[in-house]
Amino acid sequence: MSDTPTDHEIATPAELAGSLGAAAQAIETTIDALLPPVPGDESVLIEAMRYATLGGGKRMRGYLVTEIGALFGARRESALRVAASVEMLHAYSLVHDDLPAMDDDDLRRGRPSTHRQFDEAMAILAGDALQTSAFEILADEATDADPSIRIRLVAALAQASGAAGMVGGQVIDIRGEGRALPLNQVRRLHALKTGALIRYSAEAGAILGHANSAERDAIVDYGRDLGTAFQVADDVLDATASAEELGKTAGKDEASGKSTYVSLLGIDSAREEARKLSERAIDALAPFGARAASLRALAQYVVERRN
Amino acid sequence: MSDTPTDHEIATPAELAGSLGAAAQAIETTIDALLPPVPGDESVLIEAMRYATLGGGKRMRGYLVTEIGALFGARRESALRVAASVEMLHAYSLVHDDLPAMDDDDLRRGRPSTHRQFDEAMAILAGDALQTSAFEILADEATDADPSIRIRLVAALAQASGAAGMVGGQVIDIRGEGRALPLNQVRRLHALKTGALIRYSAEAGAILGHANSAERDAIVDYGRDLGTAFQVADDVLDATASAEELGKTAGKDEASGKSTYVSLLGIDSAREEARKLSERAIDALAPFGARAASLRALAQYVVERRN
Repeated sequence: MSDTPTDHEIATPAELAGSLGAAAQAIETTIDALLPPVPGDESVLIEAMRYATLGGGKRMRGYLVTEIGALFGARRESALRVAASVEMLHAYSLVHDDLPAMDDDDLRRGRPSTHRQFDEAMAILAGDALQTSAFEILADEATDADPSIRIRLVAALAQASGAAGMVGGQVIDIRGEGRALPLNQVRRLHALKTGALIRYSAEAGAILGHANSAERDAIVDYGRDLGTAFQVADDVLDATASAEELGKTAGKDEASGKSTYVSLLGIDSAREEARKLSERAIDALAPFGARAASLRALAQYVVERRN
Repeated sequence: MSDTPTDHEIATPAELAGSLGAAAQAIETTIDALLPPVPGDESVLIEAMRYATLGGGKRMRGYLVTEIGALFGARRESALRVAASVEMLHAYSLVHDDLPAMDDDDLRRGRPSTHRQFDEAMAILAGDALQTSAFEILADEATDADPSIRIRLVAALAQASGAAGMVGGQVIDIRGEGRALPLNQVRRLHALKTGALIRYSAEAGAILGHANSAERDAIVDYGRDLGTAFQVADDVLDATASAEELGKTAGKDEASGKSTYVSLLGIDSAREEARKLSERAIDALAPFGARAASLRALAQYVVERRN
């Protein structure tokens, strides 16, 4: 629908890498400060929470919050707290997904998963407490002086991550293992399981920055298409990349008989779908001109990455 | 410190039973409406959430919200939503506590525990989604038109249930199994594991009803002592009642070598401590006269109950 962005409207890969790296570091520092070690018998819980959230990950969700927050002039400190919150929520979902009763994964970001490093009970409890922390951080007045902004963030995160969002998608995923799902079910699965939280991350930046409703709609469209593009590209990567490149077990989808974009569309059409979604995400940013240069580059990056 | 309450300041056991029963039924109806069955592959998640929260329990936490909300003139519909929320939070903790990696309990309220009725993965996810729902319900404007009231409830629930509250207490409990804990550690364990959420339930009613700070302090004192009295009485029950009376496995504390009020104080002193805490809880209600008659009777009931 729109023209191709001009050069100054899209960041170079090196610029994006610098921007992502700086945000990841600031988010890491924020999480570190929000989860200080404690004395006493419960210290191991905090250690497990820190293990699960610190020292890894691209921080794409947190980056969306900080970058979109900046686009609308949100306070940097506020955006970093909301970014830390969504990364804790994401980390909780990974810790629980990796449990023996779920995906039974021993490896996460190239390190032992939390229940392998600690034990199952501590992984369950650390995940539980990370979810609570995500909401606690949003509710704290340090995040934003205005309670109506904080409560909107809480409501949006709850909707994105609960039974009608991330956890609902996880259930569809589990129930779909070993049987063929049609494409529309696979789309719905991913819209819930990974899409909802990515879309929330984008929306949270807009909420923090008091974006008007047209701006917020554009950002939500961007977040939705980015999230789907990310997932289609993930399926392609699972089918084509090595475990070394991924930092996690590769080829798991085919081994478990899961229906994926790749199994349903084939590699080439899945790649093409990811590319189209990426372009549509970039189109949604048209109102924001050069200020959205990094967000456009991110939409390219998620479909071109090798891990 | 205060005089014994007069007859009209303390409800009879029959009056309390009627009040508790009516509240439990209204809370049940509210939870039922907040967790409607859904179609699709994720329907089993909602079924598991409903199984874990509906059809059982004394609803003591929810009752505190509705009864204290009524004491301060809170809207009944608001109080019932907050009551449903805390009962969902409580149910999530029970579902996760019962898991094989945790307490490995097959029986809960006389029925198979959630992971026995469904499976482990669904119990983990249902617990996760129940925690999310608890926050989602508080954040919804149907709970209270004023966002600053809603955000205070979210912040208080997060603090009571996370690493510095319920989950932290659960970790101390797990780490204490099979070794002797001193009395001050056992007190701290219970103040976090069960006390924090009971105290929150009382405070939530005061927040909803716009109690002033002196009133809120009195209610928080009541909630704190009630919660401790409840737990000491629970230890006594575990040591003295049958599984049939309890509706769950009895004598588990001694079998697992846990330090309890009973193992540390002996049965008689533990009973005496529960009685004193109950009296102190009743004392805290002195400012509220006859309007707190049921709350006083509740403080007697928790130390006299047989299940």
